[in-house]
Amino acid sequence: MTLTHRTVNALLQDFRSPAPTPGGGSAAALAGAVGASLLAMVAALPKPRASTAADLQLLRDAGERCTALAADLESLVDRDSEAYELVVSAYRLPKATDEEKAARTRAIQDALRVAIAAPLDVMRASNAAIALVPVLQAHGNQNAWSDVQVGLELLRAGLRGARVNVEINLGSVKDATYATEVAREVARLSESGAAGAPSASS
Amino acid sequence: MTLTHRTVNALLQDFRSPAPTPGGGSAAALAGAVGASLLAMVAALPKPRASTAADLQLLRDAGERCTALAADLESLVDRDSEAYELVVSAYRLPKATDEEKAARTRAIQDALRVAIAAPLDVMRASNAAIALVPVLQAHGNQNAWSDVQVGLELLRAGLRGARVNVEINLGSVKDATYATEVAREVARLSESGAAGAPSASS
Repeated sequence: MTLTHRTVNALLQDFRSPAPTPGGGSAAALAGAVGASLLAMVAALPKPRASTAADLQLLRDAGERCTALAADLESLVDRDSEAYELVVSAYRLPKATDEEKAARTRAIQDALRVAIAAPLDVMRASNAAIALVPVLQAHGNQNAWSDVQVGLELLRAGLRGARVNVEINLGSVKDATYATEVAREVARLSESGAAGAPSASS
Repeated sequence: MTLTHRTVNALLQDFRSPAPTPGGGSAAALAGAVGASLLAMVAALPKPRASTAADLQLLRDAGERCTALAADLESLVDRDSEAYELVVSAYRLPKATDEEKAARTRAIQDALRVAIAAPLDVMRASNAAIALVPVLQAHGNQNAWSDVQVGLELLRAGLRGARVNVEINLGSVKDATYATEVAREVARLSESGAAGAPSASS
């Protein structure tokens, strides 16, 4: 059974248990999924009047995109925990002979890429949802603005939490070109996620 | 059935639906519950060596407190949505006669206090969990530090998201003394929540 088909109560207990999964990576994905879902709700609530057909279409498109991003982030709750277990398994491979050592190193490096791809996708999806906030601000019902603000806080927590999980794995990657590329994308996503939307505390 | 006894998948769908509950207030409580749960997990993982019995006891106490705070925050997911519905019901009371108007005003003011108490309790619990981070930093296993960082991001999102929900209701409160007291506590909780722990992005 996937983590997101457990009850919220059971998943919270799983987070509390000393077992390593689910851990921070899955929690960051969940934060993003809740945040994107709140934005999707607000996109379904147009301004009570004075909306043109074009405005309504923009809002509808933003809502569909938020719903798709929330679904992506929901699936990343599981993907992150699976990727973590892949890394752990690779580290447990035998290393008695040179051949075993080489195979283990390759398996670790491959697993690290999977364990980086999951939180990087959380960052991408959270960032894409944050980029839609101006559409909600312009065309959504102002009575639901507090829901946008909370959604934004959750998406930013997802973005920053996922970043921590990318970087912890990136430290063990041997391919410098790949590591530099990922670090660059992480910096770009963090910057636009922080700057691309009105502050929820203003 | 309570919201937290639904599956995560179903709760995410509820957040996405245009129905006003569950909304941002419940989402903020959930963020806090996940954050406190991650801290409780880390508290169950002591440093591999060099821990005194006193250190271990501090860590155990912090873990028990995080678990209790996570349970409080979990119950606040429902409490916030129930409080919102109380406010909506009060606004729907009849207001044809002066007597009805007075009764409606009293009901609205009473409901607003309930709707303020819920996110204020989310702020208090998130803040209390954030205050335990230094204990985890000093005595917890450093391999789990990324989980503390993600937990901190989620608790801060819970704190800020709950603040938005306190303030939106506080704007309609007529009792100035009570409103001033709440505003003061909100400012104090926000400040210590932001300052009381190492930054997760450093």
